[in-house]
Amino acid sequence: MSIHLQRDMEILTKELLSLGSMVVDAINKATIALIDRRADLAEEVINGDDAINQKEVQVEEECMKVLALNQPVAADLRFIVVVLKVNNDLERMGDLAVNIAERADYLSRKEPISASLDFSKMVEGVKRMLNESLDALIKKDTGIAKSVLKMDDDIDAINRTMYVTLQEAMKKDPSTIKRAVHLLSVSRHLERIADLSTNIAEEVVFMVEGELIRHNTECYTD
Amino acid sequence: MSIHLQRDMEILTKELLSLGSMVVDAINKATIALIDRRADLAEEVINGDDAINQKEVQVEEECMKVLALNQPVAADLRFIVVVLKVNNDLERMGDLAVNIAERADYLSRKEPISASLDFSKMVEGVKRMLNESLDALIKKDTGIAKSVLKMDDDIDAINRTMYVTLQEAMKKDPSTIKRAVHLLSVSRHLERIADLSTNIAEEVVFMVEGELIRHNTECYTD
Repeated sequence: MSIHLQRDMEILTKELLSLGSMVVDAINKATIALIDRRADLAEEVINGDDAINQKEVQVEEECMKVLALNQPVAADLRFIVVVLKVNNDLERMGDLAVNIAERADYLSRKEPISASLDFSKMVEGVKRMLNESLDALIKKDTGIAKSVLKMDDDIDAINRTMYVTLQEAMKKDPSTIKRAVHLLSVSRHLERIADLSTNIAEEVVFMVEGELIRHNTECYTD
Repeated sequence: MSIHLQRDMEILTKELLSLGSMVVDAINKATIALIDRRADLAEEVINGDDAINQKEVQVEEECMKVLALNQPVAADLRFIVVVLKVNNDLERMGDLAVNIAERADYLSRKEPISASLDFSKMVEGVKRMLNESLDALIKKDTGIAKSVLKMDDDIDAINRTMYVTLQEAMKKDPSTIKRAVHLLSVSRHLERIADLSTNIAEEVVFMVEGELIRHNTECYTD
């Protein structure tokens, strides 16, 4: 790899990680807004989305520049295509964080539903999956990537439990329906963030081992 | 553009369109399965997902090959990056079609909900958006792309109406809750397919006019 390309790839990686931090921060705030009923934090997430979108555009432009100027091949080319895809995934996670924040804002102004919902555990798992998938990408470490893949089943299971619990709450007290539908959406969005983290981990395994493990599972939520 | 690159780009476009047709077909079948209560069609969609996934991988590999062998720059490079992104979006639409099919399969074995739900109109709009966004991409026609963007508001409005109608149905008769939650998901998945078609249309405008119109709107479904 030329010194030029090496330097450009390092800058690219740094920019992608910076987007990653912004998205992790948005998910953090959105979920604290939900759990601690903090409308102020929800607003911060909603207002912060523009910066995430701008960063995504910037990373994509950087990728195009590296492709045009250095014309990388083989592993370097694969890495840049992975950066393009992860960049896209991170921006979508940012959108999901905004959607969670919007629902947290609504719910913070309503009476809580009296159902046993363990969002904290789900949130912890999802954040860990995202952080570790980015760590795996930067270190090109398939061990970390594969541990992320294993964690996805737990999140799917929690999401299914949420659906059952919330449907029961709605049946028991139909006045909760609107709030419960918002909470169903939050659960589904968290599960989507976990799925997108899984995508990143799968890309890392493919990039390093050449083994395609994408498209193995899809979660069916009822 | 060299003759070599031109030929490779034509092959790439053809392959992407072939994936597009497979996804349009899956959405068609999944939505007929829903509206006409056809579990057999739902099963076809679920079984057909592997072929869509394989085609996505193939298109991505083709992109990598074109990048490595022809080292395109400027507009050609931008087009290939757009193909990579659209490829990803199409595969996600395929997943959404599978999810709709799974719910159609479940619902076909249950009593229909007696609520006024106009899925046909929503489905027609979504399919039109997808077809026209692909048409815009192939023809590099920003006029068609911009007409797709305008259609998205209608779909968002129908989705919001679905949410209101289904929440009312649940309140009126709590025994409908599980079926209604499935229908909420179908509505949301259709809205997501419309969003992904919007992404494609936005990419076309950016590619042709250099004007960035991504990240303008997000739909908030309650």
